[in-house]
Amino acid sequence: MRIAVVEKILSANDQLAAQNRSWLDKARVFSLNFMASPGAGKTSLIEQTVSRLTEKLRLGVIDGDIATSFDAERAQAAGAIAAQINTGGDCHLDAVMLQEALVEFPLADIDLLIVENVGNLICPANFRLGTHKSVLIASVPEGDDKPYKYPGTYRGIDILVINKIDLLPYVKFDMARFQRGVEALNPGVKTFALSCQTGEGMDAWIEWLVHSQQQYLKTEF
Amino acid sequence: MRIAVVEKILSANDQLAAQNRSWLDKARVFSLNFMASPGAGKTSLIEQTVSRLTEKLRLGVIDGDIATSFDAERAQAAGAIAAQINTGGDCHLDAVMLQEALVEFPLADIDLLIVENVGNLICPANFRLGTHKSVLIASVPEGDDKPYKYPGTYRGIDILVINKIDLLPYVKFDMARFQRGVEALNPGVKTFALSCQTGEGMDAWIEWLVHSQQQYLKTEF
Repeated sequence: MRIAVVEKILSANDQLAAQNRSWLDKARVFSLNFMASPGAGKTSLIEQTVSRLTEKLRLGVIDGDIATSFDAERAQAAGAIAAQINTGGDCHLDAVMLQEALVEFPLADIDLLIVENVGNLICPANFRLGTHKSVLIASVPEGDDKPYKYPGTYRGIDILVINKIDLLPYVKFDMARFQRGVEALNPGVKTFALSCQTGEGMDAWIEWLVHSQQQYLKTEF
Repeated sequence: MRIAVVEKILSANDQLAAQNRSWLDKARVFSLNFMASPGAGKTSLIEQTVSRLTEKLRLGVIDGDIATSFDAERAQAAGAIAAQINTGGDCHLDAVMLQEALVEFPLADIDLLIVENVGNLICPANFRLGTHKSVLIASVPEGDDKPYKYPGTYRGIDILVINKIDLLPYVKFDMARFQRGVEALNPGVKTFALSCQTGEGMDAWIEWLVHSQQQYLKTEF
């Protein structure tokens, strides 16, 4: 009985996720789902990404949080068209919440949409939103054991960003151990190591984004 | 209908939490529920606490994680009697899971039990376990906006530990802003600022623990 209910909810979510994807594709908006622990640097990466892409691409950001509109305000201040979803306690975004935000969002005015999920390394991975790529932002001070301890999230992602590499000299973080864990779960996953504070590694990330958006536009729908 | 189901689940959880509490009180075991984001330093604080208390108190640790027994192994290596709960995907511990662990745990052989919840700043706060005190471990690199963005967890705790203060010189963290957020949600909450790496601030935390356990033993049950 209980399993049946879970399946029904997931399937309804997946149907709405497919609808979200079709809306995004109709508007030719390439879209990313940013997932991470609280404080790993999702919003900082969005700020840096928006300010570096502002001449090249028109950016939209939809932020998910339990409370406050701090993150959307930061994205807007950096130059994006931004909206905030307050989940009111829910620990993840789902396709329904994203759809409610997309209905009001000026998709015709943007090229790239970043959806910032709720800060949580577990539940967001269980709910498809309809975005094109899932991006996990890990951060150095979280520790090198995280892939082993949160396998579901690491397994399901398309892109891994290792943030806060400027803190490597000050914390215990064995990059080889971290990467072995990632490799076991998600072999060959595209990875960027960077610092939103110093800017180190940002160029490769921005290049990848611009290239991926161009490739996306060449897709037949 | 949906609300009725939620109420029923919470109430069943609370009943089991009360039972857990009565088992702990019968064994005269003072108990803490450690909650935090992934990588805030729950396990490091447990290691440091166990190794500093080993002469004074007999410690037990029950670790909750989605996968691996890394944390219980670390607690055991530090000198505690340890058990691991693998939630198999669940993003929090609940009273049922703790009860299953308590059934097998040698409560007669310990004075203090630390339950390490799953790394998650949202859901664990919604499930009482039956422990005597809830402790939130925040960490400096997570950022000073966390009380504002995760009010439910900050509101419900008895003790706040601010970990990784050794990283204050290297990250943007406005302690006054952080503490204003805490104060608005949980006025006067007992707070410790410390570093598990350098040991700074650990003495006050250990003193509080020893004192609180002694006070607990004086309680009439």
